[in-house]
Amino acid sequence: MNISDIIRKKRAFGKLTKEEIKYAVSSFTAGKIADYQMAALLMAICLNGLTFEETCELTRAMVDTGATLDLSSIAGKKIDKHSTGGVGDGTSLVIAPLVASAGVVVPMMAGRGLEHTGGTIDKLESIPNFKTALNKDEFMGNLRKIGVAICGQTNEIAPADDKMYALRDVTGTVDSIPLIASSIMSKKLAEGSDGLVLDVKAGSGGFSKCVPDAKKLAREMIKIAESFGKKAVAIITDMSQPLGNAVGNSLEVIQAIEVMKGKGPEDFRQLVIALSLRMLILAGEKDIPRLRQTLEDNLSNGKALGKFREMVECQHGDARVVDNPEKILPGSSGRIELRAPRKGFVDFADTRNIGIAANLLGAGRFVKEDKIDFGSGIKLSKKRGDYVEEDEPVATFYFNNDSKVKEAELRFWEGMKVVDRKPKRQTLILAEIWK
Amino acid sequence: MNISDIIRKKRAFGKLTKEEIKYAVSSFTAGKIADYQMAALLMAICLNGLTFEETCELTRAMVDTGATLDLSSIAGKKIDKHSTGGVGDGTSLVIAPLVASAGVVVPMMAGRGLEHTGGTIDKLESIPNFKTALNKDEFMGNLRKIGVAICGQTNEIAPADDKMYALRDVTGTVDSIPLIASSIMSKKLAEGSDGLVLDVKAGSGGFSKCVPDAKKLAREMIKIAESFGKKAVAIITDMSQPLGNAVGNSLEVIQAIEVMKGKGPEDFRQLVIALSLRMLILAGEKDIPRLRQTLEDNLSNGKALGKFREMVECQHGDARVVDNPEKILPGSSGRIELRAPRKGFVDFADTRNIGIAANLLGAGRFVKEDKIDFGSGIKLSKKRGDYVEEDEPVATFYFNNDSKVKEAELRFWEGMKVVDRKPKRQTLILAEIWK
Repeated sequence: MNISDIIRKKRAFGKLTKEEIKYAVSSFTAGKIADYQMAALLMAICLNGLTFEETCELTRAMVDTGATLDLSSIAGKKIDKHSTGGVGDGTSLVIAPLVASAGVVVPMMAGRGLEHTGGTIDKLESIPNFKTALNKDEFMGNLRKIGVAICGQTNEIAPADDKMYALRDVTGTVDSIPLIASSIMSKKLAEGSDGLVLDVKAGSGGFSKCVPDAKKLAREMIKIAESFGKKAVAIITDMSQPLGNAVGNSLEVIQAIEVMKGKGPEDFRQLVIALSLRMLILAGEKDIPRLRQTLEDNLSNGKALGKFREMVECQHGDARVVDNPEKILPGSSGRIELRAPRKGFVDFADTRNIGIAANLLGAGRFVKEDKIDFGSGIKLSKKRGDYVEEDEPVATFYFNNDSKVKEAELRFWEGMKVVDRKPKRQTLILAEIWK
Repeated sequence: MNISDIIRKKRAFGKLTKEEIKYAVSSFTAGKIADYQMAALLMAICLNGLTFEETCELTRAMVDTGATLDLSSIAGKKIDKHSTGGVGDGTSLVIAPLVASAGVVVPMMAGRGLEHTGGTIDKLESIPNFKTALNKDEFMGNLRKIGVAICGQTNEIAPADDKMYALRDVTGTVDSIPLIASSIMSKKLAEGSDGLVLDVKAGSGGFSKCVPDAKKLAREMIKIAESFGKKAVAIITDMSQPLGNAVGNSLEVIQAIEVMKGKGPEDFRQLVIALSLRMLILAGEKDIPRLRQTLEDNLSNGKALGKFREMVECQHGDARVVDNPEKILPGSSGRIELRAPRKGFVDFADTRNIGIAANLLGAGRFVKEDKIDFGSGIKLSKKRGDYVEEDEPVATFYFNNDSKVKEAELRFWEGMKVVDRKPKRQTLILAEIWK
């Protein structure tokens, strides 16, 4: 088999065989196919597409380059959640312990920040000594013991995806539904959970900019899961403004802990409940009103927080974070307030810029080698539709290094704006897809 | 400027600016853009196309990565010829001295064998000591002295093209009219001739498989030439069977010398006259019947051969080749005859295979590092439409290393076949394009 022939076939709108896809993916992962050849194939795929069958074969081929976990020895249903990524979406920090506190096992392999979006693993690492690099035995041991574990996706799981993603990132080939769907699902299918709840973001702060695109992606992922014999469900949620009030690692952990103390921002809380509820339903639970009540109760009665504390302890983190998050988590030496330039209503022009502003303050990476400054980020005091007077504070920047604060401020105001007419309220949950 | 943005723009069917094209080409040539990024851009160009304006800017950007020759100090019109490549097309060996013998200067920068097609430079190098790597002073000195010089395209001329071609070759991105046209024209425009005659092959042995594709390519190249203020004309010629009777380096030099002695195969001779005539016309000559007569005369009266001898001498080759080509040129120790498996008429199924068979015998390269065995190749004793009895010889293989003779034989019979019905005669000159 020859990679040039495979590239030319896809270039000519041909349908690749299982063997051709397997050859391309496994040889590329083994370093036997050059980056430039894979780049050409990926661009041809972006432009000429993949059939659903090809997308499944691609997913399978990526799964097969690494290890797969077998969680069958762990009692109970194992359900994971995945979000396509947004600004301020730290819901995993709450959902994992909350669902575990309701009796369903949550084996969560999560990612790091990507472009303007934050990553669960980075957020957890702001807790001193929290260990995200669990090996298989630690991961399964924790699941067995406390019913929840969150770890980083290791190179053992679908290594093809890491290598292909890195290449896509620099060759303009990220934005492709079959490539995004197979990338996400290759990791998730290798993890061995029984079911998966997908949170597909739509709006300027997500990767899908509109609901139809998000739906397409969601349907593709659900179909892939089904073809592998796994249950999946998706909700399409609004990402046209940041979720919650915090953007940045320590800041989002603090907010998550507040939510598990029965407080916290309403939209964040609503999404936590919505996703957790669907995870319980996938696990076989049926009584929706009772489940919803349990989830709400567990956020106020300390059960979710207790599970969070167990998780932090099991993963070697400083569990005092639960009681004194501001004291234990890395903070910031500098802060400035951003004030409304005029009176009017807050709106978001392009939420991606809020994520980038936070990254400029230190909360995210621009190149893989950048070190994250956990204490930095943005706290919003106003959300879409809020009325503000001229000069009223709308947000606070937190930082330890002020070299890019000006740039962050410029970006922030490309994200948030103050307008005359009150913007229309956007529903948080825009659509729901059950197979 | 950022290459990822440029890739994404072309991916989204955007029109690239002059500055974007210049940045991509010059940075890639300077090693500042990775191969995988250029591969992605090239695939996006293959699939989404380039406007004519973009194609011209690409050509200009490639020319600008290297030196350009200024031939204005040499008296008379300077006209070059370029063929898109075929099997058995050694016409340049005759055309260059023939046109020079008729008083027009021929500054020819030629290429090496590519895939199944032969290259003028390889053929000339079968003449002992013939120097094809002329520097600028030698090239211009020879033109001034004898009116003709053929040299290899050096890295000084449009180096971007070499680097991009090498990448296209392994990423399934060769076959694209704007990329082929700009690649050819970048070399030709940098050479500084006043006009260019293009021989665009159509058929199974050429790169364009059909006449409409060949015409499109021809029109694109002529338009590029015009936008650079140069005259160009194209003929589309048949490459559905090999040209002449010889495929291989020494064998084609021997045939070329025969043609300059007034003999040789009719189709080869016809193409030589047709292309040479158009070169004279581009140089400003008008009296077509007289020009044709001069060309025919110069092939029989020894004038073309005399010019060829001068050229060989000027380029340090063994000029005795003119009188005793078989003695001076590298020969072969092995030969086998290929015989018709049945009675019937000769036809060609896929002429590309005849070129590959010759390469397997040693006449061409499969990887850049392969050394050519100049004495090896194929002589055809039958052409399309010829009647053969069962077991009658149709061709002879010449070789020094018999390791791939069997493979060559298999390939040969995928190229030539013997059929019941006499195939239709194909005209040699299929179309002609004057701006």
